[in-house]
Amino acid sequence: MIETMGEKAIQEIKQLLQLSESMEQVVNPYEVSAKDGGKIDYDKIVEKFGCKRVDQSLIDRVHRLTSRDPHVFLRRGVFFAHRDFNEILDSFERGDKFYLYTGRGPSSEALHLGHLIPFMFTKYLQEAFKVPVVIQLTDDEKFMWSKTLKVEDTKRLARENIKDIIACGFDVEKTFIFSNIEHAGTFYENTLKIGKCVTVNKANAIFGFAGEDPVGKMGFPPVQAAPSFASSFQHLFLGKDNNLRCLIPCAIDQDPYFRMTRDVAPRLDYSKSALIESKFLPSLKAMNGKMSASNPNSAIYVTDTTKDIKKKVNSAFSGGKDNSTEQENAGADLEVDIPFKYLSFFLDDDAELEHIKKEYGEGRMLSGPVKQRLTEVLTEVVEKHRKARAAVTDEMVNAFMAVRPLPKMFD
Amino acid sequence: MIETMGEKAIQEIKQLLQLSESMEQVVNPYEVSAKDGGKIDYDKIVEKFGCKRVDQSLIDRVHRLTSRDPHVFLRRGVFFAHRDFNEILDSFERGDKFYLYTGRGPSSEALHLGHLIPFMFTKYLQEAFKVPVVIQLTDDEKFMWSKTLKVEDTKRLARENIKDIIACGFDVEKTFIFSNIEHAGTFYENTLKIGKCVTVNKANAIFGFAGEDPVGKMGFPPVQAAPSFASSFQHLFLGKDNNLRCLIPCAIDQDPYFRMTRDVAPRLDYSKSALIESKFLPSLKAMNGKMSASNPNSAIYVTDTTKDIKKKVNSAFSGGKDNSTEQENAGADLEVDIPFKYLSFFLDDDAELEHIKKEYGEGRMLSGPVKQRLTEVLTEVVEKHRKARAAVTDEMVNAFMAVRPLPKMFD
Repeated sequence: MIETMGEKAIQEIKQLLQLSESMEQVVNPYEVSAKDGGKIDYDKIVEKFGCKRVDQSLIDRVHRLTSRDPHVFLRRGVFFAHRDFNEILDSFERGDKFYLYTGRGPSSEALHLGHLIPFMFTKYLQEAFKVPVVIQLTDDEKFMWSKTLKVEDTKRLARENIKDIIACGFDVEKTFIFSNIEHAGTFYENTLKIGKCVTVNKANAIFGFAGEDPVGKMGFPPVQAAPSFASSFQHLFLGKDNNLRCLIPCAIDQDPYFRMTRDVAPRLDYSKSALIESKFLPSLKAMNGKMSASNPNSAIYVTDTTKDIKKKVNSAFSGGKDNSTEQENAGADLEVDIPFKYLSFFLDDDAELEHIKKEYGEGRMLSGPVKQRLTEVLTEVVEKHRKARAAVTDEMVNAFMAVRPLPKMFD
Repeated sequence: MIETMGEKAIQEIKQLLQLSESMEQVVNPYEVSAKDGGKIDYDKIVEKFGCKRVDQSLIDRVHRLTSRDPHVFLRRGVFFAHRDFNEILDSFERGDKFYLYTGRGPSSEALHLGHLIPFMFTKYLQEAFKVPVVIQLTDDEKFMWSKTLKVEDTKRLARENIKDIIACGFDVEKTFIFSNIEHAGTFYENTLKIGKCVTVNKANAIFGFAGEDPVGKMGFPPVQAAPSFASSFQHLFLGKDNNLRCLIPCAIDQDPYFRMTRDVAPRLDYSKSALIESKFLPSLKAMNGKMSASNPNSAIYVTDTTKDIKKKVNSAFSGGKDNSTEQENAGADLEVDIPFKYLSFFLDDDAELEHIKKEYGEGRMLSGPVKQRLTEVLTEVVEKHRKARAAVTDEMVNAFMAVRPLPKMFD
């Protein structure tokens, strides 16, 4: 939550400078003053923002609905503007409830009376309307905007500020106070640390983000980077192995992605994740192609039947010659032969693969038997997977997804 | 995790198109092919990316260290490149452990064999090195990039894909599989929904973000917006009141901030949060100023002593006249008189305030007694807060911060 006073986040500066341009007054995080040295024209602010004035009838209505004196901040026009507050009262009158949300960015210095105003007023609303309150401490924002504060600092400041907030008299039975970082945990904490090391320009360069993209995309790269650091998983490693090194098996096209992750690691005192990277399984249609979801015949799916597999393999691009005579004379071009390539991925027996390579490559074996053998091999792989997948229950899924220490990490 | 095959996230497209520009081949999410129709030149990719080839000595070393045949994908050069894999082996040889991280973006169509390759290989590494594995399902990314899929869809697809992953044979005692959304919970789910509704351009306009800012800043606005929607707090409201309306008490300078939140609400089928907005407590130094942390004399801090308060109030900007004769003739200018303004914030008794307004404004009361009264009032406020804060224990802080249902929400 942006603070009501004191040091502020840059967004407010810009926001309010925009505002000030259109008005003869300066309203920014560091000062609120009228250029002519007079008072702030709150009417102009209301007009500019398009919110509504709190009028006497609204105050009287609060008085009637809560059957108690409206808070002095309401009577004296301190809380002077609103949006849809009248609708809240309409529905409250019909018996519908609502909840209150306020908060603050944890500040290093002691709070002053201006800081307490929203909390004093929120506490009054909680009592008067008998409604729950959520209070957000934006220690994540404070960390992201601060040049000096560490995550540990902003978390500590949040807890200190929370003591001042509680002192305003909130009811623990209807109040939830949370620090964004403590509430979300160590995984989020690492996404923050990573997200502070990567500029928008760099993200645009690596990931091609553009202005019309949703801001949510900007938030994602740190989420994929976080698992590279063991401290993201306190529950797994119980904080014992916060610098346990990470090895990432992935396809080669992921390399630029994790280069970003490796670049930030030293700045966070984390060890760089290592990578082991694969080639692409080629399309059944050609060596120079990658399987595409758009052409089902270019790939073998784990749901394919033996019949499907046989059909696809037989129509796969072959390096064998058109007729047996040619094949016997010239042999197959193994460099472009898809069935042979697939065998090299999925046929475990080195000796047999070597045999096929020699016989087929030198023309003593025709493409038919090679495709026949590949059909057998792939059918076995797919059948094995199909059986195994069918045996996976929801309970098993929950067991793997359970947040827990890993009982036999290194056994 | 970006998928190894099939539909991909935009970042890869850009990444790999950049790559392709510098090479005579196209390597992008939809195809991997050489412009000359030949094979992909993996040597050029390795050279361009700056990773290393997996050579025979490395494979032999894996063989020796794991005392079992290296996986076929390693023997046949499917996993052909690496970064620091040798360092992983060095430390493993010294007895240091590591962990494995892989994942995928949940896909709607059935998996094909290309999708299984990283999981088959990761499962082998888990067995061979006896190390833990974390597997990330990026249902958040899938949602953010998808034009059609809802959060519920990508969460469901993640669980379906997890069944295929488990079927590869991972050991539940050393494997943690997580969906980003399920793992982080409903608060994060709402930040995603919000973050998908706000473009980078809009965020730049509202918050003044710039290219040199860290991407982490882009991630923050949705975090401040999320508490405006009750569904962010399943634990509080137990999912019973997912559309419970929210009222936000805040200072007027927050209005543009929550306008963004209100704008996205209807797109998420959430009710708009209402606002009730306050003026600023002025600086002790002038009506047209706001208190500033830089000038401690401009504000009353909750840590100030009676002596501090007396001193600050006496030096506050007064609308009273310089001498009693003038004051008696002209009266005080209450429009600019800070002590009177502060009394209007903190003196609860309407009758007494009305009396002071009349007497002081019409010159029958001098500024001295007004400042005297204000000192009493502020001392009482600050003392009350100081006592209350001193009584706040860490246990109380934990009680307010505990993730729990609110026992007496509306009592």
